[in-house]
Amino acid sequence: MSEKIQFVERQQLKEKPDPKDLGFGEHFTDYMLSFQYDADKGWHDLKIVPYGSIEISPAAQALHYGQAVFEGLKAYKHDGEVDLFRPSQNFKRINNSLERLEMPKVDEELLLEGLKQLVDVERDWVPEGDGQSLYIRPFVFATEGVLGVRPAKSYQMLIILSPSGNYYGGESLTPTKIYVEDEYVRAVRGGVGFAKVAGNYAASLKSQTNAAEEGYDQVLWLDGVERKYIEEVGSMNIFFVENGKIVTPELNGSILPGITRKTVIELAQKLGYEVETRHVSIDELFEAYDKGELTEVFGTGTAAVISPVGKLKYEDREIVINNNETGEITQKLYDNYVGIQSGKLDDPEGWRVVVPRYE
Amino acid sequence: MSEKIQFVERQQLKEKPDPKDLGFGEHFTDYMLSFQYDADKGWHDLKIVPYGSIEISPAAQALHYGQAVFEGLKAYKHDGEVDLFRPSQNFKRINNSLERLEMPKVDEELLLEGLKQLVDVERDWVPEGDGQSLYIRPFVFATEGVLGVRPAKSYQMLIILSPSGNYYGGESLTPTKIYVEDEYVRAVRGGVGFAKVAGNYAASLKSQTNAAEEGYDQVLWLDGVERKYIEEVGSMNIFFVENGKIVTPELNGSILPGITRKTVIELAQKLGYEVETRHVSIDELFEAYDKGELTEVFGTGTAAVISPVGKLKYEDREIVINNNETGEITQKLYDNYVGIQSGKLDDPEGWRVVVPRYE
Repeated sequence: MSEKIQFVERQQLKEKPDPKDLGFGEHFTDYMLSFQYDADKGWHDLKIVPYGSIEISPAAQALHYGQAVFEGLKAYKHDGEVDLFRPSQNFKRINNSLERLEMPKVDEELLLEGLKQLVDVERDWVPEGDGQSLYIRPFVFATEGVLGVRPAKSYQMLIILSPSGNYYGGESLTPTKIYVEDEYVRAVRGGVGFAKVAGNYAASLKSQTNAAEEGYDQVLWLDGVERKYIEEVGSMNIFFVENGKIVTPELNGSILPGITRKTVIELAQKLGYEVETRHVSIDELFEAYDKGELTEVFGTGTAAVISPVGKLKYEDREIVINNNETGEITQKLYDNYVGIQSGKLDDPEGWRVVVPRYE
Repeated sequence: MSEKIQFVERQQLKEKPDPKDLGFGEHFTDYMLSFQYDADKGWHDLKIVPYGSIEISPAAQALHYGQAVFEGLKAYKHDGEVDLFRPSQNFKRINNSLERLEMPKVDEELLLEGLKQLVDVERDWVPEGDGQSLYIRPFVFATEGVLGVRPAKSYQMLIILSPSGNYYGGESLTPTKIYVEDEYVRAVRGGVGFAKVAGNYAASLKSQTNAAEEGYDQVLWLDGVERKYIEEVGSMNIFFVENGKIVTPELNGSILPGITRKTVIELAQKLGYEVETRHVSIDELFEAYDKGELTEVFGTGTAAVISPVGKLKYEDREIVINNNETGEITQKLYDNYVGIQSGKLDDPEGWRVVVPRYE
């Protein structure tokens, strides 16, 4: 077993929220993992500290120039044990994001070990209800207080934990309504769309608000150049079932390489489905619908898991997918994915990583 | 005279930096202006407080989703008085940026009054050397600690002040070397390029680092769609002198509408030059150079003021502009612009705004 990292104990533990009313990302546990970087020492001072406010310079570059990246993953409890789901993928991806923003990479194995020790301390916070999990948010932000536009020389990494319910609220597998954005653009080739960087999300809010005002849950983004190829939903990657085949946009530099996307592709192939990753235009989609060939649409994401899409609006037309019900393939993928995550099904690929009991 | 806003005095004033060694945005004054927003009260609690660290939630949305915008302007000292330069333009623009990121707008007049009172308190910090000024940084960031991706319900605005020298270091009017970026993209139509939002700057760092490694000072961005039209330099808008005419890319939604750009256009027209704002392709520029028609290139920005470009590299070719010297028109615009800013020339348009003595 690895060495224990420093643990700063808090005086008094918090009261836990009502498990019936968790929401998403609203409650935080007693502790967080903290890691510091400066140009002289590199990454140092990894420790578990009480969750609470942080002090930063008002000139901290993250607040001015957006040098900030994050990740999201989940821990599940079953049979008295707590598992992480494919956590190495997240630490690998955060390093890709860090690199894109000229931020210093982290030691993936050390961070995974730190996360395990943190979650071990917090295992009582992992909720067990349907669709519930402990949402884990690693993030890194620039702390140096200098206003020249250049990569900062100091950073903080934190991992905070939030016991959470379904991302969209309500029951799992409630079909969502999606608005295809034809005015605003999320990302473009050569930009930062493939990285999980803070600025991508701020840029998406206006479109999200407009969609919500028209009664839609989320926005489907088209490519920034031709405005015709389907990219992603912002909180989810998107999949289509066309003629029994599963189709999803290929990674092109402006789409986030979702870990749930990757897992669902692997899972679908093991279940015997054909999966195509390629350019998908919005016109192709509507033509397939008109021919009766578009039978299911669903999104995938860590927060949203697998979420059926019931309605899709583009320009003046709204189409209803599979009678606004969860399709057969979506259901099967969901059952298998959640089954493995929650420990109800076998895990032949070793996607679940058990959190050890350190003491 | 307007009502005095609340003033929280600090115990001890800081030591002021050596005026010969200011750098840019490295030193900060004794006080800052602070303003709070929450959904219930709106903007409230405007006050001048000691400059120092701020406490924020580790879940503050600015750190995760990049809901953060900023402005930059300058104060100059002359004849014992301190002036701001066109400050209303900055508060107007910050409202455009706030709107794009679904953040609450501020009262432009109230903020200008607050800024005047802050700068009055700090008038001893305004440096008087050549190319020096008090750099003023208003910024707004989301403080609500919730991880759902949606506009935050609480924000903080701060204005911090930094006595600064030339942005690029060294003497004013030293020609810069610019690298035309042909791989990475800063912004795209439908995105947030026209707004002064944090994420735009983080996205530019990698390209900036690559350019620096090849010995260039800054990056010139091309449009994200066709990759052929010239946009901006990131810290500056860009101008060309072609056949004696001044040409600058037109605002298209992905270029920042620079206040110095606007002022330089107005000034050039008053000085009798023809100014064209239109699409400018990188090919046009090199063709004009080959025909001997491209005689000057310069950038404009609050931090950089007016900065001649001596070398421009695109793909495998580097061109030297005006023998790597400051051109006649660049020099004339610089003299007039800086002359008005510094109080050495008349100010018929009322661009200088005197900071009153409140007590």
